Amino acid sequence: MNEPQPEVVDRVQRSFGRQRFMATLGAALERVAPGEVHIRLPFRDELTQQHGFLHAGVVTSIVDSACGYAALTLMPPGAAVLTVEFKVNLLAPAKGESFIARARVLRAGRTLTVCQGDVFATHDGEEKLVAVMTATLMAVRDRPELAD
Amino acid sequence: MNEPQPEVVDRVQRSFGRQRFMATLGAALERVAPGEVHIRLPFRDELTQQHGFLHAGVVTSIVDSACGYAALTLMPPGAAVLTVEFKVNLLAPAKGESFIARARVLRAGRTLTVCQGDVFATHDGEEKLVAVMTATLMAVRDRPELAD
Amino acid sequence: MNEPQPEVVDRVQRSFGRQRFMATLGAALERVAPGEVHIRLPFRDELTQQHGFLHAGVVTSIVDSACGYAALTLMPPGAAVLTVEFKVNLLAPAKGESFIARARVLRAGRTLTVCQGDVFATHDGEEKLVAVMTATLMAVRDRPELAD
Amino acid sequence: MNEPQPEVVDRVQRSFGRQRFMATLGAALERVAPGEVHIRLPFRDELTQQHGFLHAGVVTSIVDSACGYAALTLMPPGAAVLTVEFKVNLLAPAKGESFIARARVLRAGRTLTVCQGDVFATHDGEEKLVAVMTATLMAVRDRPELAD
Repeated sequence: MNEPQPEVVDRVQRSFGRQRFMATLGAALERVAPGEVHIRLPFRDELTQQHGFLHAGVVTSIVDSACGYAALTLMPPGAAVLTVEFKVNLLAPAKGESFIARARVLRAGRTLTVCQGDVFATHDGEEKLVAVMTATLMAVRDRPELAD
Repeated sequence: MNEPQPEVVDRVQRSFGRQRFMATLGAALERVAPGEVHIRLPFRDELTQQHGFLHAGVVTSIVDSACGYAALTLMPPGAAVLTVEFKVNLLAPAKGESFIARARVLRAGRTLTVCQGDVFATHDGEEKLVAVMTATLMAVRDRPELAD
Repeated sequence: MNEPQPEVVDRVQRSFGRQRFMATLGAALERVAPGEVHIRLPFRDELTQQHGFLHAGVVTSIVDSACGYAALTLMPPGAAVLTVEFKVNLLAPAKGESFIARARVLRAGRTLTVCQGDVFATHDGEEKLVAVMTATLMAVRDRPELAD
Repeated sequence: MNEPQPEVVDRVQRSFGRQRFMATLGAALERVAPGEVHIRLPFRDELTQQHGFLHAGVVTSIVDSACGYAALTLMPPGAAVLTVEFKVNLLAPAKGESFIARARVLRAGRTLTVCQGDVFATHDGEEKLVAVMTATLMAVRDRPELAD
């Protein structure tokens, strides 16, 4: 709905760039807008569980980061974002050529933000919903060693 | 309480060995017993989020695998284990030299098993609880392409 | 999208009528359609927590029943529905003249169904989202003493 | 471990007495100690779901209140407690003569407290675990209209 502001996009991109685990996975930001972030991950054998599907922890990792950054887009400058909790329901085996996590803010409060995220597997150009997350994120203001 | 049976240990070790993502993380099985599995992960910079802590997705990955294998120890031969859902509460920043996920079965049913898992960070020889998970796992019997 | 079939509506209404706790709360079915159920609850002082808001357990009760019946609409005759687990995020104090829980099926499997539900408070004709639930429901087939 | 202090017990009892829904259910405080609260509920037909078991929303209500009050025992005077989120896994049908919810604080922070709670059904003098909750509670300080 809203157009992304350059400073919001920049803030998320810089913080995402510091998440070394996203590089380890091979994940990339695909969309940053106020209250909404998408992260894309190509399938790789190094990320699988015992049946050859994407490990549930990897599915969780990209949608947790997407939820966190969706929350960060609405936080005032100087606040850092930390995940308080999340729940993931795995709806189907995570099989596909790539995966996209799409997160949006449900409610942004002064301290707590609640986000929902969906993870879709893309196979032969079709998307299938494989997981949903509901997460609580916290804006941390009083710890200067933490940024974004 | 119960001593691990060799075939249970072997079953979990072989399946864990097929979880390529555990090798990517550098995680190792530390204990396998009926209804209980521990997984250890040394800290590495490649696994961090933007503040230098272990990414919540990594914390989740090791405790999800620990819960899944704790459930598998009590499943009949031929059943494969799939994660249905989990919830994670992050209690403290995941800082430490290594991390251990300890999972145990709360209730083992014919189809569904519920596990709880704790993740501790080890720093200077002291353990600190950084996350708790409650997970539902499913025994899948009718899909011969899935094993353990 | 789909129009409610009389037998589906009837099945849910009869089971809802046996949920004595819904009568205790004063809750009523407002909509039954394939994969979707709405439950309405007028505010009453007898249902409050210490600050005068609707108790979180009451909010949970109506959206749990709505999720369960949304799942039941898609289950074959003879199956009974049981709640496996749910998570609720409370987004705002539950204040209002009445509350409506709207649940829909995200994925219907042979054994497990995943639903999401929203609870809105109605105040002066305006709706406000106060809670969201994600729930796993189970179809129980082998227990003749359980119906719907 | 710690002995209950009279002012902590009194604070919880007064707030519990204002939770009109606990009276509606017929629930009673059974134990209040620092970081720990137990709530007892006798079975009543008015609280059942369609199969005659205690409704999952009732199970949730008593363990949510127990978690909230366990958190409150460790909050400074003047803070009010609100539930942020919880997840419940239902392990067995809630059948029994009475039910007891036992909650304890896992981690008490300045703003957020995480609690775990168990619900046991008592039948013929034996206790059976029927549900587990993990909950996040918030200390609200800046709203003088909210107390405890």
